[in-house]
Amino acid sequence: MENFTFYSPTFFAFGKGTENQAGEYVKQFGGTKVLIHYGGGSVVRSGLLDRVKASLEKEGLEYVELGGVKPNPRSGLVYEGIDLCKKEEVDFILAVGGGSTIDSSKAIAAGVVYDGDFWDFYQGKTVEEALPIGTILTISAAGSEGSPDSVITKEEGMFKRGASGNALRPKFSILNPELTQTLPPYQTAAGATDIMAHLYERYLTNSTEVEVTDRLIEALLLTMKYEAPRVIADPNNYEARANIMWAGMMAHNHSCGVGRSQDWNSHVIEHELSALYDCAHGAGLAVTMPAVFRYVMNHDVMRFAQVAVRVWGCEMNFEHPEVTALEGIDAFQKFLISLGMPKNFDELGAKEEDIPKLVEVLCRGDGRDGTISGFVTLNEEDCKKIYQMMI
Amino acid sequence: MENFTFYSPTFFAFGKGTENQAGEYVKQFGGTKVLIHYGGGSVVRSGLLDRVKASLEKEGLEYVELGGVKPNPRSGLVYEGIDLCKKEEVDFILAVGGGSTIDSSKAIAAGVVYDGDFWDFYQGKTVEEALPIGTILTISAAGSEGSPDSVITKEEGMFKRGASGNALRPKFSILNPELTQTLPPYQTAAGATDIMAHLYERYLTNSTEVEVTDRLIEALLLTMKYEAPRVIADPNNYEARANIMWAGMMAHNHSCGVGRSQDWNSHVIEHELSALYDCAHGAGLAVTMPAVFRYVMNHDVMRFAQVAVRVWGCEMNFEHPEVTALEGIDAFQKFLISLGMPKNFDELGAKEEDIPKLVEVLCRGDGRDGTISGFVTLNEEDCKKIYQMMI
Repeated sequence: MENFTFYSPTFFAFGKGTENQAGEYVKQFGGTKVLIHYGGGSVVRSGLLDRVKASLEKEGLEYVELGGVKPNPRSGLVYEGIDLCKKEEVDFILAVGGGSTIDSSKAIAAGVVYDGDFWDFYQGKTVEEALPIGTILTISAAGSEGSPDSVITKEEGMFKRGASGNALRPKFSILNPELTQTLPPYQTAAGATDIMAHLYERYLTNSTEVEVTDRLIEALLLTMKYEAPRVIADPNNYEARANIMWAGMMAHNHSCGVGRSQDWNSHVIEHELSALYDCAHGAGLAVTMPAVFRYVMNHDVMRFAQVAVRVWGCEMNFEHPEVTALEGIDAFQKFLISLGMPKNFDELGAKEEDIPKLVEVLCRGDGRDGTISGFVTLNEEDCKKIYQMMI
Repeated sequence: MENFTFYSPTFFAFGKGTENQAGEYVKQFGGTKVLIHYGGGSVVRSGLLDRVKASLEKEGLEYVELGGVKPNPRSGLVYEGIDLCKKEEVDFILAVGGGSTIDSSKAIAAGVVYDGDFWDFYQGKTVEEALPIGTILTISAAGSEGSPDSVITKEEGMFKRGASGNALRPKFSILNPELTQTLPPYQTAAGATDIMAHLYERYLTNSTEVEVTDRLIEALLLTMKYEAPRVIADPNNYEARANIMWAGMMAHNHSCGVGRSQDWNSHVIEHELSALYDCAHGAGLAVTMPAVFRYVMNHDVMRFAQVAVRVWGCEMNFEHPEVTALEGIDAFQKFLISLGMPKNFDELGAKEEDIPKLVEVLCRGDGRDGTISGFVTLNEEDCKKIYQMMI
């Protein structure tokens, strides 16, 4: 196990009706003038936005609003949010929505207190300072409610990139599983896939002797294996929604990823797909992960055999561990398909003829040097082959 | 799953050499005048205390010292610490040691800023305010380095009681597995038992639909099952020590116990043993848990069968699940004995003739009403039978 630091100071309020405490928590964590940031549609239609406003008003808090966050959130709205916060002297940002809304809020929070262009943080500069943010989560997926991370797409060049820093961890996050019950099955499945991807990305490690984090990751994968089909079968299954919601937070607050190297190549390979085709990130991951895993499997067959046996219930083939390893990848892909996720480029809406462009942006875009690093370092030829495996 | 809040704002620095950053962290978290609180013996002999002092001096921090914490820490030293902190105007407490030292530090931290008797907090009053504390952990066991809890024994009446409150969560905790390598095998095994007890106490629940926390608890039990024998076989196995150290923190920072009712009857039944005989808490638990589990097993046979199958590798007896449940308890007890833990009153140094006194203090002492509540509510007769099962 490698040396590490871990810091997860977010206060979580979990359960039914907790969104009505939003005002109390904003006050508790020092906010006086709030930006409510959200997407649109369901947050408004469901009456959630009105309940949140009522909660702020009850505490005598002022607020301004900025809606319009889209999936794969864009830099344009971030710049707009930064200007609005400066003009209105906002001192707290309340994100009401899923990962896209929270990530957009984090970008605004970092940008407001920074003299330069906020995009600097998405090119590798650590976020040391940001406005405090709170979240009311409506989709179990990105884990942004408990993470120090944010992913934004820059319209110019369609670069989808991530920023990080403990200053981006929310002060509080409100997790009410009821709020996720209206989510359509496809988005629910895409969210479950994203959660499982956060676990696999941590599982694929070159560090040795990491039993405790291996076991924790497997525990969360087993939870998803049990709960995701239950919630697809019955979207109103509160208990399944609740278990997924906590698993999604734990999968990405990093407590199960400490002290070990990680992968994240599936994420960056997928980011080019959702940037170009605007598909759901989870759906892109459902197509990307099996291809990546089959491509890199021989780098550490026993690791893939371990997850196959411990999570997917495969019987260990002691003479041919690679058979077990592959069975585990097959079982994972079948599982994702059973949830309603796409299995290839065609179902995702991606095009074979775009592969050269995808590889170019992935490996050379925005200052990259021709490779992406993780569990295995992949060059342009590797990435081309991986995209071709998804056809 | 039940509604809950969760807040774990402790900063963790984990790995080799991290104790040398103690001064930096004290400064970062606002300390200027420090009480270094410790036990004695090994912390001094190993040179750890000198390294910690050097680290504080490097940052220009003033400090005073209070050693002498004993296992099952006493109220007498807490009063002494409170007086010292007030006199010296200490604004930060640095605990260097195991759970006893950290718990004693927490009691002092709460008492310094409280007008009444600090013991009020150990009779049920929540700790809302305390001096900030930091820890340098030398024993993987109590989980106090990441918990909001403290257990102290009051000399008058020998009551061993707990206090709690988020204000007691350390600002930072330094976890260097190397510091645990000099620990004798018996203390190492007692620590491992305590960690597993924290997991079992959370596992024994009357809440339903708690897959995510069930799986997380099982993950940490599986880790201990693998790593504890390795560290008993080779005390210098850094990797095993490291995995146990993070498992011990995760077992008790409560992230795997949220949204579910818990037991803790084994703990309170044991507390009377370590209060009266001054045995190691973990050793007491090794004798207590199997007796409690066998006594309450029929309250939920399937729960005990589940842990038997998932953790202890027992084959499920579908016709007689109670056979599997009992096999799991037997396997757990055999495991503890294999680590070097005692199996009965005699090996623990407890006496059959004391049972009436143990039951009296347990069920009636310090304002209790004749029962203790948890997974199953137990009355004086139940507790008597449980103690008798330990003979």
